Amino acid sequence: MASYATTSLLELEVVPTVAYTSNDGDDCTAKKMTKTSEDEEIEITLGQNMHASCLGIKEPEANDKVTGEKEAYLAGVLARYKKRWIERTQHHLGYPFNLDFDYGALDELQHFSLNNLGDPFIESNYGVHSRDFEVGVLDWFAHLWEIEKEEYWGYVTNGGTEGNLHGILTGREVFSDGILYASKDSHYSVFKAARMYRMECIEIETLVSGEIDCLNLKIKLLQNQSKPAILNVNIGTTVKGAIDDLDLVIHTLEECGYAHNRFYIHCDGALFGLMLPFLNKAPQVTFKKPIDSVSVSGHKFVGCPMPCGVQIVRRKHISALSRNIEYLVSMDATITGSRNGHAPIFLWYTLSRKGYHGFQKEVRMCLDNALYLKDRLSEVGVSVMLNELSNTVVFERPQDEEFVQRWQLACQGNIAHAVVMPNVTREKLNIFLDELVEKRSKWFKDVGNQPSCVAFMIGKENCACPLHKITTHK
Amino acid sequence: MASYATTSLLELEVVPTVAYTSNDGDDCTAKKMTKTSEDEEIEITLGQNMHASCLGIKEPEANDKVTGEKEAYLAGVLARYKKRWIERTQHHLGYPFNLDFDYGALDELQHFSLNNLGDPFIESNYGVHSRDFEVGVLDWFAHLWEIEKEEYWGYVTNGGTEGNLHGILTGREVFSDGILYASKDSHYSVFKAARMYRMECIEIETLVSGEIDCLNLKIKLLQNQSKPAILNVNIGTTVKGAIDDLDLVIHTLEECGYAHNRFYIHCDGALFGLMLPFLNKAPQVTFKKPIDSVSVSGHKFVGCPMPCGVQIVRRKHISALSRNIEYLVSMDATITGSRNGHAPIFLWYTLSRKGYHGFQKEVRMCLDNALYLKDRLSEVGVSVMLNELSNTVVFERPQDEEFVQRWQLACQGNIAHAVVMPNVTREKLNIFLDELVEKRSKWFKDVGNQPSCVAFMIGKENCACPLHKITTHK
Repeated sequence: MASYATTSLLELEVVPTVAYTSNDGDDCTAKKMTKTSEDEEIEITLGQNMHASCLGIKEPEANDKVTGEKEAYLAGVLARYKKRWIERTQHHLGYPFNLDFDYGALDELQHFSLNNLGDPFIESNYGVHSRDFEVGVLDWFAHLWEIEKEEYWGYVTNGGTEGNLHGILTGREVFSDGILYASKDSHYSVFKAARMYRMECIEIETLVSGEIDCLNLKIKLLQNQSKPAILNVNIGTTVKGAIDDLDLVIHTLEECGYAHNRFYIHCDGALFGLMLPFLNKAPQVTFKKPIDSVSVSGHKFVGCPMPCGVQIVRRKHISALSRNIEYLVSMDATITGSRNGHAPIFLWYTLSRKGYHGFQKEVRMCLDNALYLKDRLSEVGVSVMLNELSNTVVFERPQDEEFVQRWQLACQGNIAHAVVMPNVTREKLNIFLDELVEKRSKWFKDVGNQPSCVAFMIGKENCACPLHKITTHK
Repeated sequence: MASYATTSLLELEVVPTVAYTSNDGDDCTAKKMTKTSEDEEIEITLGQNMHASCLGIKEPEANDKVTGEKEAYLAGVLARYKKRWIERTQHHLGYPFNLDFDYGALDELQHFSLNNLGDPFIESNYGVHSRDFEVGVLDWFAHLWEIEKEEYWGYVTNGGTEGNLHGILTGREVFSDGILYASKDSHYSVFKAARMYRMECIEIETLVSGEIDCLNLKIKLLQNQSKPAILNVNIGTTVKGAIDDLDLVIHTLEECGYAHNRFYIHCDGALFGLMLPFLNKAPQVTFKKPIDSVSVSGHKFVGCPMPCGVQIVRRKHISALSRNIEYLVSMDATITGSRNGHAPIFLWYTLSRKGYHGFQKEVRMCLDNALYLKDRLSEVGVSVMLNELSNTVVFERPQDEEFVQRWQLACQGNIAHAVVMPNVTREKLNIFLDELVEKRSKWFKDVGNQPSCVAFMIGKENCACPLHKITTHK
C-alpha cells in the first residue's frame, strides 16, 4: 500500500490533500479503497482528527489585561501566519484563485456585522447590510449573460458549490421527477447535490479534452425519455478546464425529442463563467438560449479574499420554488439564509474598477500566458495539454512531492495542472519552469527512470513519454 | 388587503421584511396567501426585483486612471454607507447579533484569499488557509460540549442554517428512512432541510413559552414507532428564545421504546449554544447525553463581522456519511466545500481573548439586562414575556412602523422582540424605553385605540391589554 500524500484532481477544487495510509486499527475512521493509475489498491482514511499543528486556545490569565501578555501572544501568532500566507501566495499555481487584489480601501468593512439575510430584493428590518451593492453586482452579471432585470432572480452565494446546490435544487423543484445528467468531469458538488436531494443521476462520458461526450448523452437521453432532463453543463471543468459545448447539448436535447418545457439547464461557470463572455470564438453562455441558471465563483476570476459566488436564475423558476416551499412560511429561496454582506462589496468594488473592458484584458493575458506555459513545457519535453480557450495547463506530474507542495499543484494520478490566473505572471512562470527543468534533470538522469505515459489522460499527441515521443514526435 | 411592510417573526432570523401587497398583475411573481393574527388573508409577493436603491456598476471611463474620478466615486459611496452602518449598528435590538467587537488587529487579513477547502482535518495543497485556527476553535467547542478530540468531527460553517442543513443530512445518512421531528417554533431552515432532502417531517406542537410540547411529541413518536427518529432540538427558539428540554426529549424517546441506536438528535444552538454552558440551572447540552450533533452561530453570541458557525458531530457518523458518499471520490463531508478562511481567525481571536470566563460574564450581563428590560416594560404597562434563562424579550408590537424600523425590531402579528446581546447596554435600553413610552402616550391617547391582546402569543398572565389587565393584574 502506498503511503504518500497526494491530491486527487477530481476533488481539486474543494478537496484537500488526502492522507493515504495503511493504518486500519481505528474503528472510528471510515476507509475506502480506491485505485491509483497503476491499478494498485490503496486505502484512504477519512475524517481523521489531525491536531498536530492546531492552535489551541488558552484560557486568558487573570492578569493578562495588565501585562498585555495575551495580546502580545495573539499578535505574534498572526505575524507568523501572515508571513506564511505571503510566501504561500507567491508560490501558487494549482488552484483557480486570482490572488492579485488590493482591497486596502475596504479595510474598515470588518468593523461591521454585514448580513444580507434572505432575499436580496426584499428589504430587511436588519439595517446593517449591503443589498444595494449586491443587487448592483447581480445586475452586472445579468447584463453579461443577457437577461433582463425583471426576468432574473439571483443572489451572492458562498461559492461555486452553493451555486450548484441552488441551481440543481431549482431544477428539481421545477421537475420533481427529473433525472440529473452530468459529465463525469463535473465538479463533485454536482454529484453531492444529487445525493443530498435524492435525485436520479446519470453520469455521462467525456472526451479526452474533458468535454461532455454528446453521443453518450444522446444514448442516455433516449433511454430515459419518459422523464424530464436536468442538465449540468460545465463552463470549464475543474481538472482540464474543458468547456462543454452548450449549443451541442441543447441540439442533442432537441434531437432526442425533449421540448423546451421538458428540460432544465444549469451552467456551472465557476471559473470560466466570467472568462467566456470575453472570448469571441467561445460558445456563449446567454439566457437568450434555453438555459435556466448560471453560477460563477467570485474568489476565482474576480479575486475576492473569501469564497463567494454569483447565482443568476430565471425568475419564473424561483416563483415555482417559492410556491413549493410555501408551507415554510418563508420568502427565502437561498440555500444559506444568513448571508455574508462583505462579499458583495468586494465584488462591487472590483467590477466597478475593472469593468467589462478590464476583465477582457485580463482574460486575454491569462490565455496568452497559459499558451506560453504550454509551449515552454512542450519545448523542454514535458507532456502537456491545453484546451482551446482555456487557462488550465495539464502536464506530467512532477515526481517530487516537495516540488508539488511548493507550487501548490493539484495532481491526479500521473498528471498535474496549473491554472494561469491574473496573478500568475510570465516572471513567475519562468521561475517555475527553471525549477522544473532543473528538477527533471535530476529525476530522469537514469535511463531506468523516465517520464510516465499520460496518453490515457491527455491524448497521445500530447504525451512526451519515451514511447509516444518516438512514435508521434519523430 | 393590508399593504404595509412587516416582518414575520417565524422568519426573523434569516428572512427580511416582506412587502405585503395587493398587486396581482404580474405573472412572474409568486404569491401566497397567509393569515395575519386577525385571520385576515393577505397576499405576499415573492421574488420581486426591487432595484430602487441599488448601486449600479458603471463601466470605467478611459481616463479614470488619470483623473482619479472613479476612485473618488467609490470612496464617496463607501463613506456614505459606513455612516449608515454606524448609525444602524447603534440602533439595533431585534436580531441576535453581537455587534460589540473590535477586530482592528485583524485588518490586514483581507489581503489574503484564505480558503479552508474541504475537511479541516485533512491538509490541502492550497497553502493560504487557516486550518490551524479552525481546529483550535473546534477543540474549544468540543471541550465546551464535553466530547473528546478523537470522538468528534466538525467544521466552521457559514452560519446556523448550514449547521442545521449538515446536522439533519448527517441524521438522514445514518437513518435513511428516519422521520424528522421538529417543533413548529424551530428555525425554518429545519423545514427547508426536510424538503431539500426529501425527508418525512412531523411538526410538533409547542407550549406558550415556545418550548417543544413533549406530550405531543410522545403521541407522534408512538404513532410512528416503525421508523427511526431524527430530532431537531431547539437550544433557543428564534422567536421566543425558548429552550427545549433536552432531558425530557430523551426521556420521551426512551419511554416510547426508541433504543439509543434508533434515534439521532441534532441540537440547533444558533444563539444559546454558547450561552447555556454558563447558566447553572439550564439543562445542559453535552455529548455525555445521547445527542449526535450541535450547531452554533459565530456571528451571534461571539460576534463576528460575517455570518459563520461551528458544527460539532460525533465522528462515527461522519464515517458513515463518508462511506455513503464514496462514489463521489470525495473526502469532503462539508456542505459548501470551499470555505471561508477568515471566519475561523475571527472566532479564534475572540475565544482566545475572552475565554470561558469572559463569556460567562457576558452571558450573565445579558440575562440581567434582559430582565431589566422586561421589568421596565412591565412597569409601564406593556405586555411582555421573558423565558427563564433567555435574553429574548417578547412584547407588544409598537404601532408605528417607523419606530419598528428605527430599532430594527422583528415582529410577528401583534408581537415584537428584542434580543439583549452584549452590545445592548442599559443606556441603550433606557433610550429605547423612553422613546417607547413617549410614543405610546401618543398612540393610546384615545380610549378607542388601546393595546391589542397578545395573550394567545405570550399567555394571559403576561398580557397587559385592557381585558387581561383587569382580570389578571388587579
